[in-house]
Formats: sequence, structure tokens, C-alpha cells
Amino acid sequence: MPDASDLTARSSLGSVAADLEAYCSAVADRARRAAACLARLQGGVKDHWLRRSAACLRRSQEAVLEANRQDLDAAAQYRLTDSQIDRLRLTPARLEAIAAALEQIAALPDPVGRVIGSTVRPNGLSIHKVRAPLGVVFFIYESRPNVTADAAAICVKAGNAVILRGGKEAIHSSRAIVSQLHEAAAETAVPLDAVQLVETLDRDAVGHFLRMADRIDVTIPRGGESLIRRVAAEARMPVIKHFDGNCHVYVDAAADLAKAEAILVNSKCQRMGVCNAAESLLVHAEIAARFLPAACQALQTHGIEIRGDERVRRLVPQAVPATEQDYRTEFLGPVLSACVVDSVEEAIAHINRYGSRHTDAIVTESLAAARKFAVEVDSAAVMINASTRFNDGGEFGLGAEIGISTDKFHARGPCGLEELTCYKYVVHGDGQIRA
Amino acid sequence: MPDASDLTARSSLGSVAADLEAYCSAVADRARRAAACLARLQGGVKDHWLRRSAACLRRSQEAVLEANRQDLDAAAQYRLTDSQIDRLRLTPARLEAIAAALEQIAALPDPVGRVIGSTVRPNGLSIHKVRAPLGVVFFIYESRPNVTADAAAICVKAGNAVILRGGKEAIHSSRAIVSQLHEAAAETAVPLDAVQLVETLDRDAVGHFLRMADRIDVTIPRGGESLIRRVAAEARMPVIKHFDGNCHVYVDAAADLAKAEAILVNSKCQRMGVCNAAESLLVHAEIAARFLPAACQALQTHGIEIRGDERVRRLVPQAVPATEQDYRTEFLGPVLSACVVDSVEEAIAHINRYGSRHTDAIVTESLAAARKFAVEVDSAAVMINASTRFNDGGEFGLGAEIGISTDKFHARGPCGLEELTCYKYVVHGDGQIRA
Repeated sequence: MPDASDLTARSSLGSVAADLEAYCSAVADRARRAAACLARLQGGVKDHWLRRSAACLRRSQEAVLEANRQDLDAAAQYRLTDSQIDRLRLTPARLEAIAAALEQIAALPDPVGRVIGSTVRPNGLSIHKVRAPLGVVFFIYESRPNVTADAAAICVKAGNAVILRGGKEAIHSSRAIVSQLHEAAAETAVPLDAVQLVETLDRDAVGHFLRMADRIDVTIPRGGESLIRRVAAEARMPVIKHFDGNCHVYVDAAADLAKAEAILVNSKCQRMGVCNAAESLLVHAEIAARFLPAACQALQTHGIEIRGDERVRRLVPQAVPATEQDYRTEFLGPVLSACVVDSVEEAIAHINRYGSRHTDAIVTESLAAARKFAVEVDSAAVMINASTRFNDGGEFGLGAEIGISTDKFHARGPCGLEELTCYKYVVHGDGQIRA
Repeated sequence: MPDASDLTARSSLGSVAADLEAYCSAVADRARRAAACLARLQGGVKDHWLRRSAACLRRSQEAVLEANRQDLDAAAQYRLTDSQIDRLRLTPARLEAIAAALEQIAALPDPVGRVIGSTVRPNGLSIHKVRAPLGVVFFIYESRPNVTADAAAICVKAGNAVILRGGKEAIHSSRAIVSQLHEAAAETAVPLDAVQLVETLDRDAVGHFLRMADRIDVTIPRGGESLIRRVAAEARMPVIKHFDGNCHVYVDAAADLAKAEAILVNSKCQRMGVCNAAESLLVHAEIAARFLPAACQALQTHGIEIRGDERVRRLVPQAVPATEQDYRTEFLGPVLSACVVDSVEEAIAHINRYGSRHTDAIVTESLAAARKFAVEVDSAAVMINASTRFNDGGEFGLGAEIGISTDKFHARGPCGLEELTCYKYVVHGDGQIRA
């Protein structure tokens, strides 16, 4: 079991690393060994570590807040915006929320070892498909200290070792938090290297890790689109990507217009800067005249600018003309593109053409329209008579989430514990051979 | 619906393509449109197409065999080995087997639309996780005409459009087979472009397709390791890879030695040139003296050369020394590496170090050893008291298989219909908005 001197030796590694590649390689090697160790652990050990981590964070509140103050002092130098500074800031209440989240993850059922399918063959072989850890996760994320604890907890609960590469603006906070997770690990059989923070701020480190497909099983980038594109282009291992959410609300001819207005306003206005907020409104021609004027007025009380096609603008004089680019844009702010369509088919074609395969909602009382929309819209989540804002790990009941995937492969939509596992086949026989 | 003149126009496209990239791009566009159409089809339509394809192949036996003769005539020019020529050769019986396989795939349950998970949330939202097609599959494969029909059938049954890039040595046979699949498609609502054969033999075409991540959802390469490495390095979309199978049989201290010998001989000798054949034997020291001499004699009656460590060679005088490289090698022929280990832990460590994460077997009557081996060996399939040769879609009861993945991500082990799908979330509400 690692002791405190190990901890010290490791923390100084980054600062003295003459050879960046060797440093990254050593981190990956340690993660690989930790993953092999985690694969052997009973779930209770991981849960104990999570609860002890929560206790350590609470006990060390002052040290963590002091580290956070260092980051806040440096924020001006990084030219952070007010909202970025707010996300960086820790308070006793926020630290308590981080600790409580660890305890909530501890309370979730262990995904590893669960039999997710089984067949008995005519020759008596019994074939079990069993959830197994992915192995080593490389997680790249923005400057939010709470994500450090969250991501570490979710990855390790799913049986994986994690290499954390957080934003430089939160490095002191992240170090302080990881140091508490290590304190807790030292009290349990969870290996210290189950959670490693990349100690160097050198941007080339990311490139080194992205080439280590032999030791890293998946990379999860979170942050701006340019980061995600860079990672997707450079990574030699699978990547769980989260591109933009250009989400639609389609109000069908058979919609209940009161529900439609409430869902539209909630999807657009409840929180504008997030990926599952609506960015585009499609309205069936048959109800456009009854729906659009009032609905757009409701949106305008929230300060939303409407960019519409000609048929929208005829009904909503305040609307400005929409360009084709507007239909492709994730505004993440008080702008909504809108157009009138003549059928559910046209709405589906528009969404599959301009959307980002994230979340799209239909408002309708027609079973046929709902069914068609659900089958044919090629998105991670299709909402029938519900706000787009519900596409979220918490709202889906996953208990914890590391991101929302806009990929189709392996993980689609909210990524919780299950999406951080794979499966293996375990075949039970009593001497069977193949004829 | 496409007619015969479409078919002709399309077949000549490859030969006249001045611009290779434009040709590949047009193929991908057509595949994308076909995929959108397939997503809307009822399963019965796809099954009808499969049965009609079988009928068309039977009816056109002479034309297909004639096309195959053209390939066989050219085989010398491609310097194919006898076994490659044998795999290229079609006979009436083999063509009947291809047709029958299409009918078997028609009889499998449709994976698309199946609800694979569901949650009802406290706010009344009902969340369904539903199987959906992946979209467009780019399949690169060796010169085996039967694979053309099989792969097309599996991909389309799972709701995907497929772009087939077969070996040039089988181009006439593949064309003849795809032409029958198109004939059948023209009788049904399955779009002609659900199955497209890349008509150009230009190797650069593969590179163009591998960059079309916007239109191709997954690439599946089958064939030699260099092809798979090239595809994995160049592809901008997910790849389902099938690297080598360096499979182990571990005979535990608590093994039933008669079972162990039968499993070892079957795993190694039943068919040597395949990925799930055993390449390495690990024997626990406690039973090595009782097991190894007789077992190795049995192997030698099959002409197997044993390459062993010192402890093996002390018990098996005919064995030659094994190098470390031997433990890493997929021989695909009459050679087996062997070593004596002191514990199940040592066996697991050896397999995770030298193996290829494909298939590994333990022979034991000890529940503890079996359990440990199943949890800790990091391979797609772990066999307990059964031959490694059972890791196969048919033997697992998948009904059809497009390959065996050595990846962990998305698909691991045999890839059947389910592995060619993804999922989407369909959320049913009655006006829910987020608070």
C-alpha cells in the first residue's frame, strides 16, 4: 500500500520531469497497473474509498479552499470571464456538494460483473455476457474543480483508472482535491494510481497521451469544440465526443398548443448556455397562425430574438430573417431560429440535415406522428411532449454522468457508469470441445 | 424504385470515374440516403429482400459461377496460394450454402426498435433505450465471395447501408452476387444503394472513404494485420478491429487432466489457421509432471512442435526452447509455446502480458480459480473447461457474424446483428418541463 512518501515523490515528478514523454509514459504505465488492480477489487472497497474521500474533503476544507484562492488570484492573468471565475470558485457549500456527490456515487450499484445477457447452447455451454471495466480513461476537461472529483469517482466506480488533465486555471484546486482522494486511497485497497492528475501544464503532454493506444482505452474530452476536434483528430484510441447541441422543438399539427408553448419556452429559456437547450423551432403550417404569435411573444418576454423564414416572419413581425447558417447554429444564448414546415416528414428531414444528433422534441397528440418522429430522427435523444432539457444523466436517473455523447458508437447520450464499462464473454463448460 | 438502367449506369461509374474522390463521395452520399430509407422500413421488408436474394442467387447460378471462373482464371496472375484459390472457388454446393445463409439471416429477429432498457422517472417521464441502426458501414474484406453476400445481409438486416470493398481477386464473383442482391432489391422497398460494391480497384479509394466520417459511421476491416493497422491509423470514424488471436489454454492444479488434454488438443489442432485456435499452453507446476508428457505426445501425433521453457523441456525432451517472442506469436500453424507457472495468478499475468485479448481458457475443477481467471483475464472471451474454438458467432448462437472484435469499445468478441446497431433514447412525456 502506498504511503505518504510515495505521495510526495509523485507530486514532484511533474515539476522535475526533464523528459515530457517519459513522464507521460510513466503515468500511463502506472494507470495500467492500477487498472489491473481495480479489476480485482470488490465493489465495496471502491465505495469505501468514495465515502472516505468525502470525509477527507470535508476534513480538509480549509486547505482545499486555500488552494482554490490561489487559482482565483491567478484568474485575472488567464483573463477568465466572470462566469468562468464563478465556475472556478469553491465555497464551503460547494465543497460540501462535491463530498455529497461522492457519497451518492458510492451508493449506486456496481456496474462491473453484472450479467447483461446469457445463452445456453445445445451442447451445454452456458455463455454469459458480463460487464467489465474499460481499463484506463484519459479525461480532459475544463477548469471546474468539482469535475475533478466527479470524474475520478465515476471512472473508478466503473473499475477504471483515470488520468485527469484539467484546465491550468484550476490546477491548485484540482491538486488539493486529488490529494484528498489519495489520502483516502491510502486507507483502502484502492491503488493510489487509480486517480492521477497530469502534473505538467505543457500542452504537448496531451499529444503524448493521445498516442498511447496500447495503454489508454478511451479518451473523453470536455470543453470547447476546437479541443474536441483536436483530440478526435490526434487520438489513436477511441474517443467519446461531445460536440454541439443544435436541438429542435417541432410543434406538430396535432399538438396541444398550451403544452407546446410551455415545452418551447422551457427548452429555450430555462438555461440557455447548455447543450440540451433548444436552438431551433419548427412549426407545422396548419397551426402556425394559432401558435406562433403567442409563443414568440412568450419567448420575447425572455429576451429571445427570433430568426425566421418568410412564413414565420409573416406571422411574427418582430422576427428577423434567418439565414441557412442560422439553422446550423448552436446559439447558446437568446436567439432562436424558426421555420414553418408542411409535414412531420419535412420536420424530420430538416432536423436530420441541420441538427447535431443531440436532442430533438416533438409536441403532438398524434400517435402516428410521435412514432414516426421517434424512429426517423437520428439523434441521441428524442423527446415526445417533453422539454429538450431532460437529456441529462441526472434527469435520466443514471445517478452520475461524465458527459453527453453525440457519437453513436459505444455510448450515445448521457454517459454514466455503464458507458464507462465494456463487456466480456465468460463461457462455462464441463469439457466441451468443437466437433 | 430503381430499374435496370440505373443498375447499368451505376456499374459503369467505376470504370469511367475520372475523379476518384468524387466517385467515392457519390457512393457515400447514396449510402447515406439509403440508410435513412432503411431506418424507416419494417423488418419484414428486409427479410423479404433476403429471401428474394437467395432465390435470385439460385436462379442465376450459372451466371455467378461463370463470373467466378473469370476470377479463378486470373488467380495465377495474382499469385494466389492453393488455399486462397480454394476460398475463392464457388461450386453449386457453395452457392447453395450462400443462399441458405441469407435465408437464415432473414429468420433472425430484427434487432432494430427493440427496447433494451427503460426507466420511469418520478416526474412521469418514461425513458426507453431503443436499438437503432448505426447508419453506414464501410466493410473491407478478403477475397471470399461468400463474405460479399454474408456481410451485405448482416449489415442491411441491422438497418445499415453497406459499402463493400472486397479483394480485387474476387471482383467478378462479388459483382455477380451484388447484382443478384440488387435484382431482389428492385422487387422490394429496400433501396438499391443499401448494398454498394466499390467498383474501382484503385487502392486510394479506401483512403477517401476512411476520411468520410461525416457519412460513414463505422469501418470494419477484415484481412491481414497490415491492412487493419493501415485502416486503424487512417480512419477518421470508429473502426471495429480484429487483430490476432494469441489464445491460451491454462491447465490449473485442480484440472481434470482428461478434460484438459481433450480441450488442449481441440483448441490447438481442430483448425490451426484461425484466430480462436490456441497458440500457447500454461501448466500449473503441481500437475505438470502428470500432464505434460502425455499431452505433448497427443499434440505431436498432430504434428505440433512444442516450444517450451526450461521446466517444460525437462518433462518433454522433444520440446525446443521458447523465446520471449514465441510467447507473443500467433503461429496459425503447427507450433505451440508452453510454460510452467506456479499459480493461477502467474498464469493470468502471463496471459494479460503476452496475449492478444481474444480468447483464453482455463481447465479447472476449482470454483475459486475459475472465478479469478474469469474476472482478471482481460480478454473478449474466457472459456472455463471448454475449447477456445468456441469463440465464434455461430457457436455463441448469434446466428450471423461479421467478425470477432479484439477491441473493447462498442463491440467485443463476435460481432453479430446487435453489434451493428447503436441505441437512442426515446422519452415519452405529456408536457413535462424542467424546473
